[in-house]
Amino acid sequence: MDLIQDLTWRYATKSYSDKKISEEKLNFINTAINLSASSCGLQPYRVFVIDNAELKAKLGETSFNQQIAQSSHLLVFAAYNTVTTHHIKNLVELTAEKQGVTVDALDGLFSSMDSYFSNRTDEQNKHWAEKQTYIALGTALIAAANQKVDATPMEGFDPELFDELLGLKDKNLHSVVILSLGYRDQDKDYLANAPKVRIATEEMVTMIG
Amino acid sequence: MDLIQDLTWRYATKSYSDKKISEEKLNFINTAINLSASSCGLQPYRVFVIDNAELKAKLGETSFNQQIAQSSHLLVFAAYNTVTTHHIKNLVELTAEKQGVTVDALDGLFSSMDSYFSNRTDEQNKHWAEKQTYIALGTALIAAANQKVDATPMEGFDPELFDELLGLKDKNLHSVVILSLGYRDQDKDYLANAPKVRIATEEMVTMIG
Repeated sequence: MDLIQDLTWRYATKSYSDKKISEEKLNFINTAINLSASSCGLQPYRVFVIDNAELKAKLGETSFNQQIAQSSHLLVFAAYNTVTTHHIKNLVELTAEKQGVTVDALDGLFSSMDSYFSNRTDEQNKHWAEKQTYIALGTALIAAANQKVDATPMEGFDPELFDELLGLKDKNLHSVVILSLGYRDQDKDYLANAPKVRIATEEMVTMIG
Repeated sequence: MDLIQDLTWRYATKSYSDKKISEEKLNFINTAINLSASSCGLQPYRVFVIDNAELKAKLGETSFNQQIAQSSHLLVFAAYNTVTTHHIKNLVELTAEKQGVTVDALDGLFSSMDSYFSNRTDEQNKHWAEKQTYIALGTALIAAANQKVDATPMEGFDPELFDELLGLKDKNLHSVVILSLGYRDQDKDYLANAPKVRIATEEMVTMIG
């Protein structure tokens, strides 16, 4: 893979063909998402992969219908509403298991994380969880491009509708950003052949030597 | 490149050797960052790449000194404080130039974006800009791993110190997240050989067929 080539190839697809993504490519993208970095390794989000025409139609009723209903699969990235002691305990137990140490040996880690998150407001932790979710979105975009799967990241959807239809509230989650996956309809998509619009790298990056 | 292999290879490096990153690899990472997706294509952030021992030492005084001062380069990701009509005008002009159309032809795009952002509070736009920044961070992490460059993403730094020393306020920016780049010190880094800790992909991803 050439990362720069893949990043140049991808674009926010506006029109999809009816070709479906293979299970193999979908698994690749899901695996990449789960390997994404997150602060403290807490992975404070979950992803819902929707391959159900009726549900996609309902979710697309209020916005982005074309990209949502036509897509092969719709990914909903949902962040934690709150960060609780339970979440941190789970991570410490998983760390102990993976690294072959006792939970007691990680007591310092548990205490520092637990006090860090519990000393912030739920609103602060919610924003934090949302930001982490965007790292996973960035990974998903690259993973899709790597597999030559087209994608459309979208924010301006109706989060309440999504939360309700996916039962997210009961899971202590809220929808943050969504991503359609599929294959572009080259003829119908006005953006398919449009040049990429980016500022110059020298404008983005300031070198301080 | 095998993306899954690269994502598995990377980890939050705790100790760096004194080996510097080549200009070529740094350019690769910067180019990837600038190609990152952002909502509406607004790229509401800028990156400062610090290769100055004295400045790194100052920035590391209050936190993460080891990862900041020892790194080859420190990247500071800074988001817009506000989203203004000026930003949107710039994007529309750039789009017109890249796509070979007139600015007038993009008047509808300009109006809808301008009204969208101006109808939200500065606080909402600030959070939005911060989230976009994390897509770029995710891209940078993958670009670094692609080049076998080690990296440490960090949040718990002193943003006021960073904003002051980099003069970000005058640029309508604030530091959001930082990223050290360099090469791991395999012997001194207790995490270098630790297994990666992630929940099962089946726990991260719910398939809705």
